[in-house]
Amino acid sequence: MTMLALSFARVCSGLAPFRTVLRLQPLCSASGITVAQIDEEVAKLLELKARLGGGDDGKHQFVLKTPKGTRDYNPKQMAIRERVFNTITRCFKRHGAETIDTPVFELKETLTGKYGEDSKLIYDLKDQGGELLSLRYDLTVPFARYLAMNKITNIKRYHIAKVYRRDNPAMTRGRYREFYQCDFDIAGQYDAMIPDAECLKIVHEILSELELGDFRIKVNDRRILDGMFAVCGVPDDKFRTICSTVDKLDKLPWQEVRKEMVDEKGLSEEAADQIGEYVSLHGGMDLAERLLQDPRMSQSKQACAGLSDIKLLFSYMQLFQVTDKVVFDLSLARGLDYYTGVIYEAVLTQAGVAPVALASNDAQNGSEESVSVGSVAGGGRYDGLVGMFDPKNRKVPCVGVSIGIERIFSIMEQRAEAAAEKVRTTEVQVLVASAQKNLLEERLRLVTELWNAGIKAEVMYKKNPKLLSQLQLCEEMGIPLVAILGEQELKDGVVKLRVVVSREEVDVPRSDLITEIKRRTSDA
Amino acid sequence: MTMLALSFARVCSGLAPFRTVLRLQPLCSASGITVAQIDEEVAKLLELKARLGGGDDGKHQFVLKTPKGTRDYNPKQMAIRERVFNTITRCFKRHGAETIDTPVFELKETLTGKYGEDSKLIYDLKDQGGELLSLRYDLTVPFARYLAMNKITNIKRYHIAKVYRRDNPAMTRGRYREFYQCDFDIAGQYDAMIPDAECLKIVHEILSELELGDFRIKVNDRRILDGMFAVCGVPDDKFRTICSTVDKLDKLPWQEVRKEMVDEKGLSEEAADQIGEYVSLHGGMDLAERLLQDPRMSQSKQACAGLSDIKLLFSYMQLFQVTDKVVFDLSLARGLDYYTGVIYEAVLTQAGVAPVALASNDAQNGSEESVSVGSVAGGGRYDGLVGMFDPKNRKVPCVGVSIGIERIFSIMEQRAEAAAEKVRTTEVQVLVASAQKNLLEERLRLVTELWNAGIKAEVMYKKNPKLLSQLQLCEEMGIPLVAILGEQELKDGVVKLRVVVSREEVDVPRSDLITEIKRRTSDA
Repeated sequence: MTMLALSFARVCSGLAPFRTVLRLQPLCSASGITVAQIDEEVAKLLELKARLGGGDDGKHQFVLKTPKGTRDYNPKQMAIRERVFNTITRCFKRHGAETIDTPVFELKETLTGKYGEDSKLIYDLKDQGGELLSLRYDLTVPFARYLAMNKITNIKRYHIAKVYRRDNPAMTRGRYREFYQCDFDIAGQYDAMIPDAECLKIVHEILSELELGDFRIKVNDRRILDGMFAVCGVPDDKFRTICSTVDKLDKLPWQEVRKEMVDEKGLSEEAADQIGEYVSLHGGMDLAERLLQDPRMSQSKQACAGLSDIKLLFSYMQLFQVTDKVVFDLSLARGLDYYTGVIYEAVLTQAGVAPVALASNDAQNGSEESVSVGSVAGGGRYDGLVGMFDPKNRKVPCVGVSIGIERIFSIMEQRAEAAAEKVRTTEVQVLVASAQKNLLEERLRLVTELWNAGIKAEVMYKKNPKLLSQLQLCEEMGIPLVAILGEQELKDGVVKLRVVVSREEVDVPRSDLITEIKRRTSDA
Repeated sequence: MTMLALSFARVCSGLAPFRTVLRLQPLCSASGITVAQIDEEVAKLLELKARLGGGDDGKHQFVLKTPKGTRDYNPKQMAIRERVFNTITRCFKRHGAETIDTPVFELKETLTGKYGEDSKLIYDLKDQGGELLSLRYDLTVPFARYLAMNKITNIKRYHIAKVYRRDNPAMTRGRYREFYQCDFDIAGQYDAMIPDAECLKIVHEILSELELGDFRIKVNDRRILDGMFAVCGVPDDKFRTICSTVDKLDKLPWQEVRKEMVDEKGLSEEAADQIGEYVSLHGGMDLAERLLQDPRMSQSKQACAGLSDIKLLFSYMQLFQVTDKVVFDLSLARGLDYYTGVIYEAVLTQAGVAPVALASNDAQNGSEESVSVGSVAGGGRYDGLVGMFDPKNRKVPCVGVSIGIERIFSIMEQRAEAAAEKVRTTEVQVLVASAQKNLLEERLRLVTELWNAGIKAEVMYKKNPKLLSQLQLCEEMGIPLVAILGEQELKDGVVKLRVVVSREEVDVPRSDLITEIKRRTSDA
């Protein structure tokens, strides 16, 4: 006890004794210290900290940056982002989806118990009195909460929004702590595998239309995985943790995954080896048929249900004309807890795109063959998630897909840069300019006419800009037309319309100007 | 010292001695305890807490809701929101703006010292190790940080994104803790009042185009306010706090504002009364001229500079054709610290719109005359903000406006409801249906053809849906066309195209179907 005696002086010299207390925490826990009590003490320490200056001890050097793992989008990046979003939104709308939005934060308890080992990556808000809040980790859990809260039993919706994960950022590879997800989900009790197949059709359409190079969509089923674990002798209570380990197969070679199963998770070597045989398999509908005949696998009812559904899924995918890119892959596991049936993940396979090349330099990758090309879409069926939010556990079957857009942005950006492509960041059609001095008022009058007619127009905020600098602005910004005013034009009731690229100039009667600009830019 | 002795047992029974330590914190501070040391101890306590179960002691009743002051948007609300955003974005683009995006959170220190008394409304993230972060409070400070960080000295940009304020929500009036702002700002060294006038032109265009009823744009200048304070005898160090009080004039009657100045802020009665005379004034360019002649006001150089600029602003606004809605109002103050010149705020004046009616029931409103109609846009000039982020305090003059969209949504929603308007939430052009059983495969094949041709098409996820339920779906969702397949149609190589509204049916050769659908929905 003397060792633990805390004198005021010692606290002041660094709170050292706390450390002793904390090292002994299992005893503490046994002795009845509660979470609420810790919260209270933490709050007081933080208050003390605030009074000491809140972390800003005097004047320290101000750091001018965005938070770790985040970035700004400049106008060029936004122009590219808008194009990608338009392609994706068009596809979602083509498939008849509505859209919803949810708050960026949820009650903490809404997210609790949904993400397995990844829960540690959730951003919490500071307790400032009131509710405990966390930033959303994905769009799926908020969607399920929305369905349960509004008692919606069927909907097809998309949601494009930012999500937050306190992960280790790898920003050159398009992995951020704040990033967009583009989600498409179908909720409702329908005939098997039809909505599931539509999700895969959507991935196929979007990745094709974005022209990111060749891609592969891996498909598996949680029931097949669970059945496989059962017949390989994995104890029931280890299914989820072994599943998490299998999920690493896209980043680690089998030997390392096996090691984690045996050494860390305590699986028997035989079980691990049997799993190893199965997870090396991939194919199409034929593989599903073969496994239905497999003496071991066929003993699992669950696995058989999953395998039959894979067969059905492939038959619909044939009708949807997407089987060229889809592979049934038993090594696909996906990390999240909430999947209950079909799961899938799309990867870019073309070595030409930069993120792939970068990935091969990643120390985490054991060998060249096991290079992670980075998943750009993923999803699956989660029939139990909505029920978790319903007081009576009423289930709403759901299946969905999430397009991971940041990696796609990275590729597009690098391409635009490599091609030295001139990305226009505004849509201005005409600059209202003057050739002489003292015409600011006339310029403002004319640009008002154009704005009021819906024309995208600019004017320089100078009283007397030089004509040359006005023309240079057009070159820089890619503005196609200049409407030039001078004393003579004003007298004649005309405007000199100049085509920037050809330098061609023509006098247009003021009353025809709007029609003429609309005709020339043909986007009235 | 004995009182402060901390035994291990006492820690376990509630960490009570900490409290004693904390009460003595000024001494602690003197004795050299540092913020870093407190951080370390807090982290350890939190780790202990996590091991004790992370705050979820047992199973409590789960609350199914969104956080206080936030809401979901359902598909109908999203359709309305999209329309409003499109109008606003179109206007911003018409004026030649680019767009950028910034993270939803910033380093806490980025936001520190920018919002005056409102800083208490900032949401902080929990300290989970690493940087201290806060949710953005507006889009202006992140914009200034972006400019300084990237050394950008001129840009015209818009930014539409959510911001966060731990305010008292009044959700029926469209006041939320999470809400969208639509910001348009012009940064750069330009001739006086031209960009300022364009901002007002933009407010005028957007509010007119949204058809929200009549509106008024109040204009003032921080230099006029400061000059007024000076000539009325307000001590220099009370300018900002008296300005905050003046800012309440849109919600409180003068007598209460005066009371706050005198009783709470310690201003002399004479000074308050002089202020009272000025803040009751409003008018146009003529008022600015009159005040330039005012014996008291004309003594302030600052006020004269502001008044001359108001005159110039009005002359440009005349050219922009917006003076019909603009009033120079000396009671306009705006809460935020960072304004340095012209400020403005737009309010809806039509009593017909719901938020106004609700506002008059608000207990905060002293009298019927002083009804707060709620500002829907506001902004001003902030020439010092970017410099606050620059190590060498290099200034970038800025002026901007923020459209407060939630109140506009509320009005639009209530209108749509009142008009029993049928808001379509999808854009589906055609439903692929079958009149007989066992045609799922044929339906999937046809819908694939349509999707691949870019047509927005739906199919029911049932093997054998009844024709009637397929037609009902069209009625519900407002789908205009049905492409019906039957044995006969398949044999004849045609599709029966049905117009939902007229029930007219026509057989279309399969090869012409896409062209025919595109023609009929005329949005190819």
